[in-house]
Amino acid sequence: MFEKVLIANRGEIALRVIRACRELGIRTVAVYSEADKESLPVRLADEAYCIGPPTSARSYLNIPNIVSAALLAGVDAIHPGYGYLSERADFAEICESHGIVFIGPPSSAIEMMGDKVKARKRVAEAGVPVLPGSNEPVDEHQALAIADEIGYPVMVKAAAGGGGRGMRVARTPEELRRVLAAARAEAEAAFGDGAVYVERLLEGARHVEIQVLGDRVGHMVHLGERECSIQRRHQKIIEEAPSPAVDEPLRRAMGEAAIRAARSVGYVNAGTVEFLLDPQGRFYFLEMNTRIQVEHGVTEMVTGVDLVKAQLRIAAGEELSLSQEDVRLDGHAIECRVNCEDSQSFMPSPGTISGIHFPGGPGIRIDTAILAGYTVPPYYDSLLAKLMAWGQDREEAVARMARALDEFRIDGIRTNLDFLRRIVATREFRRGELSTDFVQRMLQRQEMRSAAV
Amino acid sequence: MFEKVLIANRGEIALRVIRACRELGIRTVAVYSEADKESLPVRLADEAYCIGPPTSARSYLNIPNIVSAALLAGVDAIHPGYGYLSERADFAEICESHGIVFIGPPSSAIEMMGDKVKARKRVAEAGVPVLPGSNEPVDEHQALAIADEIGYPVMVKAAAGGGGRGMRVARTPEELRRVLAAARAEAEAAFGDGAVYVERLLEGARHVEIQVLGDRVGHMVHLGERECSIQRRHQKIIEEAPSPAVDEPLRRAMGEAAIRAARSVGYVNAGTVEFLLDPQGRFYFLEMNTRIQVEHGVTEMVTGVDLVKAQLRIAAGEELSLSQEDVRLDGHAIECRVNCEDSQSFMPSPGTISGIHFPGGPGIRIDTAILAGYTVPPYYDSLLAKLMAWGQDREEAVARMARALDEFRIDGIRTNLDFLRRIVATREFRRGELSTDFVQRMLQRQEMRSAAV
Repeated sequence: MFEKVLIANRGEIALRVIRACRELGIRTVAVYSEADKESLPVRLADEAYCIGPPTSARSYLNIPNIVSAALLAGVDAIHPGYGYLSERADFAEICESHGIVFIGPPSSAIEMMGDKVKARKRVAEAGVPVLPGSNEPVDEHQALAIADEIGYPVMVKAAAGGGGRGMRVARTPEELRRVLAAARAEAEAAFGDGAVYVERLLEGARHVEIQVLGDRVGHMVHLGERECSIQRRHQKIIEEAPSPAVDEPLRRAMGEAAIRAARSVGYVNAGTVEFLLDPQGRFYFLEMNTRIQVEHGVTEMVTGVDLVKAQLRIAAGEELSLSQEDVRLDGHAIECRVNCEDSQSFMPSPGTISGIHFPGGPGIRIDTAILAGYTVPPYYDSLLAKLMAWGQDREEAVARMARALDEFRIDGIRTNLDFLRRIVATREFRRGELSTDFVQRMLQRQEMRSAAV
Repeated sequence: MFEKVLIANRGEIALRVIRACRELGIRTVAVYSEADKESLPVRLADEAYCIGPPTSARSYLNIPNIVSAALLAGVDAIHPGYGYLSERADFAEICESHGIVFIGPPSSAIEMMGDKVKARKRVAEAGVPVLPGSNEPVDEHQALAIADEIGYPVMVKAAAGGGGRGMRVARTPEELRRVLAAARAEAEAAFGDGAVYVERLLEGARHVEIQVLGDRVGHMVHLGERECSIQRRHQKIIEEAPSPAVDEPLRRAMGEAAIRAARSVGYVNAGTVEFLLDPQGRFYFLEMNTRIQVEHGVTEMVTGVDLVKAQLRIAAGEELSLSQEDVRLDGHAIECRVNCEDSQSFMPSPGTISGIHFPGGPGIRIDTAILAGYTVPPYYDSLLAKLMAWGQDREEAVARMARALDEFRIDGIRTNLDFLRRIVATREFRRGELSTDFVQRMLQRQEMRSAAV
């Protein structure tokens, strides 16, 4: 096993990795921007190095500074967390070239899955269902021709995208012409690559993703699915495992498809294959995230497997001791992402936390790096805490989540706690009637009710 | 199901019951002493009534005031928690006579198990092994004769006792004469009943207890064991489930014995049968606790069963849906009792909590009613929080507990956190080599080391 690991990230995921390392007896090295000097991961790590000014581009994306810290501290490996450098094939390569293990898949797998057009093509060849669409980046002429062929509505997506950015819906040729330019500009700005492609839009579908774990000798298992249909602007808000829409045969089929997709790029370590699931139970590959996901905890709660420890073990060369038959889903887990944002406008709302009260008791897990007196810096994403609830069945998990949300208090800043409470209280959520337009439809209903009053 | 339940308790167990009620959609009524007006359970309950001045005798033991609050609030049932009125047969009777369900066993079962001498006799008749000893309360003459017969060392125990109070060891007839008077005086002071009995002292044994659940129609299951050998002065400090010393055949034998003991008094609801387990795997009945235990959470973590909800359901007349085959132990859970006391002198140390940081992340559960700014009142017991850690196996649970103890911070008052860290760090604890004299031996070793320095 590694003796020392550097965590190239911040916030709750940095703390999550530190905890896994401590439990395995591995020494930890935190790196931090000037804005995160007093943060909890920095305090809890065995060593910590400042890697630059507050903005991400100059700190958490600053490869030379991070690699320098790693060499200075003499670490065996780097855990990239999620976001930042976690899906940068060049970073994985640079780590390896310095004799530092990158805790993640081979750079070739990151690269292949990072190009959404190539990934689509590769997994389709491996027999994984994809939505009808373009097999190459498209110009306006090609986009219109393909949309004509596959039928409207269509989704325009960034080839270099992922995580919901650079996506636009078009319901008519006119709209497609209009959004193409916008999508291209957004993709160029976000990823430095304006290439886009077109796919049929599946409405009323669920976002269901499969967690896979593979070791270096080619052994691979899946750990069932997570449903992440509760999204706002393609950003996940509430996730759960298992999905209320997936039964055992479908789980097996999706699990096998996910493993085929992962194997098609020579995948190693933890990864997630995302699918859209339509009301008829047909599923279509969306993309593969070649890293640990924000929502990994709900899978941990129903399988008992510590995914971050599994990542560390696999990266250190251990063989997976888990067989597919060992993976048993026990009960139901739900995660709410508690964000620092206004409940009405959804605008980020950084500031200083004057007081916190965390919920507790049976079935509750909280992953967070915030504490009373902490000032949320304005430079990073708005995630404050992940609140998870486990129950013997979905009904118990929902009841626990509802009472935990009621207990949760964060004073001094605005949060989406009320918004989460409203979602969990809806009849549709209680019944598990989920789809990716759930939030949009809920907000529309509430607006209509307000207007009627 | 009940519509409204009163919780006749305070602190973390009052909050635990409120949480269970909320998850079941039951309205809650808190009662509080003047010292607990601002406490978390009072804030989180739907209603709250003051039942008297700070001292327990005038508030949490004040049956007329509690019953008045129950009648005023119009509750269906009362949950007594642990301690206080939870094992008072007269309280259970008074509740029933007012048409209020007492959430616990019938008063006859409380009464029979409350008299430790009668309980010993009754369960022995039911075929449950007991330690050699007296079958009646004894005077000095009888005590000496029985000790002579069963052999020294012996333990003198209060007939009305339980929870470790009124117990004295004697290794010679001279010592037995001396401690008899002291034990009798302590029993008289603590329980208003000076009757004592004598039992052979089993040294180097483990404290292993079985959780049982029985419904009103006579269906009863056990939920495996908890090991609670880490004690100081007969007060439990660290508990775990399962016990490192219990294998499946022994679990079955102890489980069946526990059910026999419970059935011998017509037991209904949740209860715990305590045993001593010797190094040869022989076990002996100690006593039965006719209520929820402080350490019930570790059983919840390995079985997935919410014991407090089960109590509520059984008391409301529901039949147990759980069969013995449904009870499966998954992984390992450990609980540390975080007390407000000096790590060296073990003296209680109340005061105001200036800051708290709770550990979190995978496998961690915290049950507590404390929060930053809370003043620990000097009137009640010293329990601040129960920290629990679950792992796929004991090694993972211990590693998680160790890292969670490291993260845990309570500022402004003295706690036993350092003491807990020291226990968990010992080689003996890591190996699961536990016995009821573990703490005493650890402290002796550490004293010897200090003396040597």
